[in-house]
Amino acid sequence: MTAAERFGIQPSDLLDFSANINPLGPPESVCALLRQSLSSIVHYPDPAHRSFRKALARRLQVPETWVLPGNGAAECMALAILAIQPKKVGVILPCFSEYGTLARQFGAEVAACRGDELREFKPEREELRRLFAEADLVFAGTPNNPTGILLNKEELMEMAHWTEESGTYLAVDEAFLDFAAEEKQISLLEELESFPRVMLIRSMTKMYAIPGLRLGYAVANPALIERLKQKQVSWSVNGLALAAGELCLEETQYVARTRLLIETERAYLTEVLANDLGWQVWPGEANFLLVRCPEGLEAGVLQERLGEKGILIRSCAMYPGLTSRDFRIAVRTREENVRLLTALKDVLADGREKR
Amino acid sequence: MTAAERFGIQPSDLLDFSANINPLGPPESVCALLRQSLSSIVHYPDPAHRSFRKALARRLQVPETWVLPGNGAAECMALAILAIQPKKVGVILPCFSEYGTLARQFGAEVAACRGDELREFKPEREELRRLFAEADLVFAGTPNNPTGILLNKEELMEMAHWTEESGTYLAVDEAFLDFAAEEKQISLLEELESFPRVMLIRSMTKMYAIPGLRLGYAVANPALIERLKQKQVSWSVNGLALAAGELCLEETQYVARTRLLIETERAYLTEVLANDLGWQVWPGEANFLLVRCPEGLEAGVLQERLGEKGILIRSCAMYPGLTSRDFRIAVRTREENVRLLTALKDVLADGREKR
Repeated sequence: MTAAERFGIQPSDLLDFSANINPLGPPESVCALLRQSLSSIVHYPDPAHRSFRKALARRLQVPETWVLPGNGAAECMALAILAIQPKKVGVILPCFSEYGTLARQFGAEVAACRGDELREFKPEREELRRLFAEADLVFAGTPNNPTGILLNKEELMEMAHWTEESGTYLAVDEAFLDFAAEEKQISLLEELESFPRVMLIRSMTKMYAIPGLRLGYAVANPALIERLKQKQVSWSVNGLALAAGELCLEETQYVARTRLLIETERAYLTEVLANDLGWQVWPGEANFLLVRCPEGLEAGVLQERLGEKGILIRSCAMYPGLTSRDFRIAVRTREENVRLLTALKDVLADGREKR
Repeated sequence: MTAAERFGIQPSDLLDFSANINPLGPPESVCALLRQSLSSIVHYPDPAHRSFRKALARRLQVPETWVLPGNGAAECMALAILAIQPKKVGVILPCFSEYGTLARQFGAEVAACRGDELREFKPEREELRRLFAEADLVFAGTPNNPTGILLNKEELMEMAHWTEESGTYLAVDEAFLDFAAEEKQISLLEELESFPRVMLIRSMTKMYAIPGLRLGYAVANPALIERLKQKQVSWSVNGLALAAGELCLEETQYVARTRLLIETERAYLTEVLANDLGWQVWPGEANFLLVRCPEGLEAGVLQERLGEKGILIRSCAMYPGLTSRDFRIAVRTREENVRLLTALKDVLADGREKR
């Protein structure tokens, strides 16, 4: 059942804070290109992704052999597992559930270490080191989903060194890094040359609001990229995604505008939720926030009550490492954020009346 | 290097007989829908493909649990290999090169038996039976690519029985079956219930001329479909493909019109090539034909000469089981077919002048 069916609301009337997509929608240039490019669907996509790959390499200032386009970041994660064939995949809880799902899909066990909520959900250093010793491939998100917490350069470098120490591969999931402020674009991109077991996995669908098209990519040293590529099914990235992606890479002003919007609105949402309502909000750097309901209110109940009002949020009760009071909301435009906060206050008021 | 770059011709000026796509282009209804649906790319595709899957099941008159949409037929083939994990994949030469490519990509060996060109490239019965005994998964195309030869019901049923006899899985690649005449729509679709190791793999991109969008599907008993699904990466089929696919399934008149065109034009091309020029043309039932150049003319040379004239054909010199004189051409509209035949005669005349 879809959310729309569940709440008896037209899909177009739903206000979706559960998916973390740029609230500005796709860049206008991309929409225009797609309208013009529809006739191109009669051709197979270039299986070597030459044109997009070239544009991507230019944008990242790496040689073309360092990048691999994928059918969404999810495919890149799958290719990492298929190429490396880990016996154990390491994850740092709480985190994106697909890491574990993909690991199990392709026959790996999952080893986990748990972040400490008092330390921004970061694990003890020695525990993390043990995870690297135990696993063959570790996934680490920055900013992490669903916490929004960014890894700093020292933490990234330490993990990179552990890949050398223990022969473990590291996939840094940067799907939401685009949304962090300019000065917080912290990545191992420039250190990849020193770490042949580290790859970055990025998404084009969040920042450019094209999740329906599917587009992501991996960055790593050429030998590792080649191994990923050997597991990719021909024509796996569709032609419209490749065409749109190339244009997205030019949209630097759109990215800057989005970052400004997200920074302002993330601060606004945090202000109201933390200061006005007194709820716990983690200091995320992505286009979403992890929030904890006050005692006595379950995230699942809040999700249900907001859903009835046509607003979708993501209860995080099911995330190992979180509690039944935790939920995640996307950061959207001021008008939409006000609608969410108003609805949320209404739910609280309704709750009090019923007591 | 793309063909356009190689021959110094604008991509839009190339006449492509090398890809086997419906020359009528996508149905107008699908183009209109895509124009209207572009705004839907801001949403994730439904990972359960509910709406398309339902439409597909209705069209095929099977329960929904019997079908699985894929990111092109190629993904369905990959899922078959990932799910079954064959040590050996069996192929019947000459055939689509992806069967072997995918097998090797995912760690399987390839076992082959060879079709006899004097018997429409069908192998000896006992050899084929041995292939089923030897391999864990056999791919068989009908109509087969690049020969265009259809398997008849007896041959299909015999292979299906061998899956029971030897515990081997069979993937019947029906990517081009849509183009066979109405009375030649020969498939195991209605016998699938009796053969839990048989799956059909179909493509939506050839008949509906949407290879750039990527869409295919598998049909099999629910237990096998579930195993394939367990290897599929989330959101692997993009949203526009799902939307377009649903509408394509309604386009029965378009399919009928296409079949008529292909039948007429296949006969016309055969008439000129076989009767007028005296070249060997195999009696294919798909939207392409396998042709053999006369002695003294190599397919690679013909491909090169036609390319210089802006016409792409597929030399089959590299196909194991074929000769360096074999090539494949798509069946297109009369006007385009005449252009091909004229260019082909020009190449012959040029060749004679030079001698």
